[in-house]
Amino acid sequence: MHLTYLLPAPMHVTALGETEMRRRATLLGEWSPEGTTVTVSAVDRGPSSVESAYEEYLAIPAMGSALRRAEDGGTDATILGCFGDPGLDGLREIARKPVVGPAASAMALAATLGHRFSIVTVAEGVRPLLRRIAWETGLLDALDEVRSVDLSVLAINTDKEAAFASLRDECAKLIADTDTDTLVLGCMSMGFLGAAERLTTELGVPVVNPIRAALHQAHALHGMGLSHSTRAYRTPPALADGAGGVDALLRVAEGPKEVTA
Amino acid sequence: MHLTYLLPAPMHVTALGETEMRRRATLLGEWSPEGTTVTVSAVDRGPSSVESAYEEYLAIPAMGSALRRAEDGGTDATILGCFGDPGLDGLREIARKPVVGPAASAMALAATLGHRFSIVTVAEGVRPLLRRIAWETGLLDALDEVRSVDLSVLAINTDKEAAFASLRDECAKLIADTDTDTLVLGCMSMGFLGAAERLTTELGVPVVNPIRAALHQAHALHGMGLSHSTRAYRTPPALADGAGGVDALLRVAEGPKEVTA
Amino acid sequence: MHLTYLLPAPMHVTALGETEMRRRATLLGEWSPEGTTVTVSAVDRGPSSVESAYEEYLAIPAMGSALRRAEDGGTDATILGCFGDPGLDGLREIARKPVVGPAASAMALAATLGHRFSIVTVAEGVRPLLRRIAWETGLLDALDEVRSVDLSVLAINTDKEAAFASLRDECAKLIADTDTDTLVLGCMSMGFLGAAERLTTELGVPVVNPIRAALHQAHALHGMGLSHSTRAYRTPPALADGAGGVDALLRVAEGPKEVTA
Amino acid sequence: MHLTYLLPAPMHVTALGETEMRRRATLLGEWSPEGTTVTVSAVDRGPSSVESAYEEYLAIPAMGSALRRAEDGGTDATILGCFGDPGLDGLREIARKPVVGPAASAMALAATLGHRFSIVTVAEGVRPLLRRIAWETGLLDALDEVRSVDLSVLAINTDKEAAFASLRDECAKLIADTDTDTLVLGCMSMGFLGAAERLTTELGVPVVNPIRAALHQAHALHGMGLSHSTRAYRTPPALADGAGGVDALLRVAEGPKEVTA
Amino acid sequence: MHLTYLLPAPMHVTALGETEMRRRATLLGEWSPEGTTVTVSAVDRGPSSVESAYEEYLAIPAMGSALRRAEDGGTDATILGCFGDPGLDGLREIARKPVVGPAASAMALAATLGHRFSIVTVAEGVRPLLRRIAWETGLLDALDEVRSVDLSVLAINTDKEAAFASLRDECAKLIADTDTDTLVLGCMSMGFLGAAERLTTELGVPVVNPIRAALHQAHALHGMGLSHSTRAYRTPPALADGAGGVDALLRVAEGPKEVTA
Amino acid sequence: MHLTYLLPAPMHVTALGETEMRRRATLLGEWSPEGTTVTVSAVDRGPSSVESAYEEYLAIPAMGSALRRAEDGGTDATILGCFGDPGLDGLREIARKPVVGPAASAMALAATLGHRFSIVTVAEGVRPLLRRIAWETGLLDALDEVRSVDLSVLAINTDKEAAFASLRDECAKLIADTDTDTLVLGCMSMGFLGAAERLTTELGVPVVNPIRAALHQAHALHGMGLSHSTRAYRTPPALADGAGGVDALLRVAEGPKEVTA
Repeated sequence: MHLTYLLPAPMHVTALGETEMRRRATLLGEWSPEGTTVTVSAVDRGPSSVESAYEEYLAIPAMGSALRRAEDGGTDATILGCFGDPGLDGLREIARKPVVGPAASAMALAATLGHRFSIVTVAEGVRPLLRRIAWETGLLDALDEVRSVDLSVLAINTDKEAAFASLRDECAKLIADTDTDTLVLGCMSMGFLGAAERLTTELGVPVVNPIRAALHQAHALHGMGLSHSTRAYRTPPALADGAGGVDALLRVAEGPKEVTA
Repeated sequence: MHLTYLLPAPMHVTALGETEMRRRATLLGEWSPEGTTVTVSAVDRGPSSVESAYEEYLAIPAMGSALRRAEDGGTDATILGCFGDPGLDGLREIARKPVVGPAASAMALAATLGHRFSIVTVAEGVRPLLRRIAWETGLLDALDEVRSVDLSVLAINTDKEAAFASLRDECAKLIADTDTDTLVLGCMSMGFLGAAERLTTELGVPVVNPIRAALHQAHALHGMGLSHSTRAYRTPPALADGAGGVDALLRVAEGPKEVTA
Repeated sequence: MHLTYLLPAPMHVTALGETEMRRRATLLGEWSPEGTTVTVSAVDRGPSSVESAYEEYLAIPAMGSALRRAEDGGTDATILGCFGDPGLDGLREIARKPVVGPAASAMALAATLGHRFSIVTVAEGVRPLLRRIAWETGLLDALDEVRSVDLSVLAINTDKEAAFASLRDECAKLIADTDTDTLVLGCMSMGFLGAAERLTTELGVPVVNPIRAALHQAHALHGMGLSHSTRAYRTPPALADGAGGVDALLRVAEGPKEVTA
Repeated sequence: MHLTYLLPAPMHVTALGETEMRRRATLLGEWSPEGTTVTVSAVDRGPSSVESAYEEYLAIPAMGSALRRAEDGGTDATILGCFGDPGLDGLREIARKPVVGPAASAMALAATLGHRFSIVTVAEGVRPLLRRIAWETGLLDALDEVRSVDLSVLAINTDKEAAFASLRDECAKLIADTDTDTLVLGCMSMGFLGAAERLTTELGVPVVNPIRAALHQAHALHGMGLSHSTRAYRTPPALADGAGGVDALLRVAEGPKEVTA
Repeated sequence: MHLTYLLPAPMHVTALGETEMRRRATLLGEWSPEGTTVTVSAVDRGPSSVESAYEEYLAIPAMGSALRRAEDGGTDATILGCFGDPGLDGLREIARKPVVGPAASAMALAATLGHRFSIVTVAEGVRPLLRRIAWETGLLDALDEVRSVDLSVLAINTDKEAAFASLRDECAKLIADTDTDTLVLGCMSMGFLGAAERLTTELGVPVVNPIRAALHQAHALHGMGLSHSTRAYRTPPALADGAGGVDALLRVAEGPKEVTA
Repeated sequence: MHLTYLLPAPMHVTALGETEMRRRATLLGEWSPEGTTVTVSAVDRGPSSVESAYEEYLAIPAMGSALRRAEDGGTDATILGCFGDPGLDGLREIARKPVVGPAASAMALAATLGHRFSIVTVAEGVRPLLRRIAWETGLLDALDEVRSVDLSVLAINTDKEAAFASLRDECAKLIADTDTDTLVLGCMSMGFLGAAERLTTELGVPVVNPIRAALHQAHALHGMGLSHSTRAYRTPPALADGAGGVDALLRVAEGPKEVTA
């Protein structure tokens, strides 16, 4: 099986660079069954960081183009490389292979492990988005709280232990305060640093790593011959009818126009 | 008061063109209190039509830039010119003045007029989006059905009477089938053609014109000195901290990058 | 446009008297577009104060008669002058013009400004009623909390600054405790004293003045040619058939009767 | 035990008259355990019929006075004699003994007998009220449908068999159309004519007679030494403080007053 | 009327023994109308205590056999003698007379007494079960909290005053923390010790004794000629068709079997 | 990895026998990654068929004993071999390794593939149970309908094509009637006959095979080092404290006992 992990931003031109992309590809491969090829794909334009809804929206158009290129290149499934599942519904409309959202996958798995799960993420501004994903997945009833510790991607990567400690403290507090019995780690960067597995051990409740939840779902769908429903995510009529690819959906003028009455 | 009506696509380079933009600006002015200046603004790039979630996402980045330009130019409030309220949450995060979504405004008004409202729209593919907006506005309990008649923008503008008749028939059927007591017209093009007002008369139930609902909300907020909550729609940290404008949130590389392990 | 603001009690025979009625009429006019005539109407019988459901019920029969008189006198819309929206459904059944409830209008507006709103009111006993109005408007999902500070109408009018300070403190506490991003002021008396506008400034979140929310809705409905749905609020058959007015619905005997078996 | 069944209208001056009041008192006694005294009490003013929310509201003030008189006369519990439970929350605020609503009692019993119950009533206009009672009782999840057959009180009492047949046909249709497994009879007049018991036999599903459900609840509460919660239904401060009775809550002026600005 | 109170475990071979069974039968008789015969029935096999879902499941098969024996012996209704309503749906499928669950009955009664009720029980492990019963009864909207004080059956019966004090303290805390207005006692042992009645007096809110709520419901159903819906709880086809009794549904092999591929 | 598939009944003494057990074990192995050992385990006592809640309850005690034996024998995870997930919560309380329910797993997967899923099962009597599982998993919002075609296990195994045709027709009807976009096959027997895969092809919507959904979840949990939450499914105190195994939770008397007052 050939899997693509699609980053919402041009990581190759950031400090993390290709090295981190390669490290992630390797990890994804190790977490997969034998015979899996994993490509980590970075778009040519996207937000520097994803700490708000607006930055998620900035990522989507280039992800659409990259998704189609990955499918043209033979990928069997695409995992969105951002916990906000940016544009999941829209990207599924234009895809011909399964597209998997880590947040939706992780929440669905968490829901089967207990009565009430909570999410701990690293940006205050995305908390409403995560509640919306829970609703879209039909899981809002099972979602207890969405909490955040404010950690920039920079902070996560420069002092990993301090970042982990902040996260663990917030998780422990959440468990003490509520009936939450299962956690979802709401951050891909922390996921690639092994935070979910450590938290599971240290806290005594299951903490779902969204990367691996998405990975297992991609393998499950591929194995079962299933994909998302085309009845739920309909091909845009302009794409269904037209000869061109997805980029033809975008109309570009020479400039904007204002008319005042 | 200075209002901007922000189109999600470059209408000025379509068959409707500046003429339609001017006609809409004039109508918006007539529907406003004395002393309102209305600008209809078209982005430089966006989807040719909006019949899917993906096409909504395509519209948002250019709308973000146009919104900031409009605010820099002195607008007091911006109305999104698309019934799907594309990017409403994200655009509010970067705005400094009220941003109004016609779908959210129309549903909120409809909810106060009866017990159960329904939406009739013109693209099958956006029905899930409209349910999501109802949920986001907190109004899902009041939403009865979302139905669509398949009408392309072309069809609406070439044979207006046939388009209206299709719409009216679907609305009448909906009323006969259900307890729906109030309707929301789910299409801006039909709204600018007077469809809501005609349906109200012909069907005997209130049919909310989303354009006018949004317009009244914009005036109400301006009059009351209110805007959307910055606690709900937080400024992206990268925008709050940085000196640059909203376009600086987007990072552009020379090309995409793929790494395979 | 001619608007009637219908008080649930005979304010003209209280300490506030006609002076306060005139002050309110003037304010309502100032908050309205040019060309609006505002009548403040007080019923001949009603509760001395409204701090419970029972007192709300006491107000309704005389409000029904007054509503019909106002409509006979040419009013274009009626706003209920009590945040509990007393008898809104029943009064709409007998009305021929729009009837607007301040609580429903304010909640609907608040819902469009963020993700979760709360109400702060001045009588513990009406908190369940306010939750019921949220449910009836279809907005319960968006309602976070209903809190009260115990302030009698007398207290509000004798020491306005102390009353405002109590209110502000409770609002600040609520914001500190919860994710509420938008507030609704749950008191007409405080609304006429400018409390919502001051709270908006001092707290940094939008605080909706229910009077102005209702006023804007009345103007919006009038402008759009809409009213509440007669399919939702059906005319009582006895009123539809009979020749008489609404007072004929009430049957009066010489006295009550008890039969014991 | 001494029970009062409180009619919302002056039945003694209608065609049904004291004869029907006596018949009902007798039936209520027969359905009660030994040692129960039942008084049927009719107010001095109320709606001729109850086919709308407005007519329910007209009933409440006189019911409040009658309730207090009944309690002063030694009643141990009061059952509201109308399926709309008019003013249940308000009347409980002023009561010192249990006040029981037949709709709430019947729905609560029905909910324990299956998964989904429906209500069949006799006035289209009260359907929204009955949904509201289900919500207020916390039972909306268990309520399937509220249907009505249009039967005036006159029709019910002049051709009882035709009325019963209409009702049975609607119930049978409802069962054929839905998964409803339990029914609630939504009409006190039909309840006193034995309709629920006949429907139970003829349809093969339990059909709850709201009169008997309320009666059993009144006896249960009396036997268990319980009443409704004074924390839920708080005594109006003006009643708690004042020396006077409930009628003192109503302030009466010589006439209404209008002030126009 | 002949009532059976069906214990989920063989109490007769425990320290409580037949003495406690007799005491309970006597109390149930005292709480019933004249002319009621009460049998307390203990199964031959069941869990030593019920502090988990697994232990509830252990109880059900023997309860099924005992239920059928009780019905063959002429009982008119059966009350499950455990607050978790073990197997209520399944037992109703095989019953021919009403089967009443104390938790469902108590919650339904509590829901009619206020806006929000809470349950206080004595085993942490059954809290999720009680929420599920609230959902199954359609009452989840009305349920505020489920709290527990950890009290073993042994502790309850050896130091009754200490057990009561723990319970009262938790209830008082719950009332101080929340808007809960009505309580349900979530323990049959405490119910037979008069805890609900004492708590009602000491706390000033109604505290429902589940035993008496179930008892009143059993009498109400018997009086009204009603039972649970056979449309909701369908007879197992194998029981409907076969000549044998309920024990014939169970197939017993000489031993288990494992096959490994 | 060593997996146990735990049948709720003694299949080895039925017509299907060890042959079918071996066929299932082989299929489960083929659907698993390399290196998986699968044991199909049949209990020594359980219901002949599972077409009701009561029959599900009959299965659980022997499943508890078999589960512990399987764990003692080295299994890494157990899948319940019945779509009703009999006793899932209780069995998890006593387990030390993951226990997976096919219904919960299949619904969680289906929820991620679209907006609304439906279940098609083969016994009318289990429809309420399946709705309850959806609720317990937190997924009720995503569940559209639960439909059944009445097919006995005998019918399924004697005329497989006729059984499949009935199922396909009901699924096709469901899709035509509703907005359901994803299906869950509600029957393990049909799942082992390849029905889900055929339906996916013939209907054009994803149809989830619950066996494979459960299998993938078991592998995912094992791979991720996760299990269900012990905070959600607490070990029974009597098991935590005692030295004995799970069978010691059951107390057995020489016979039942009845005491009548």
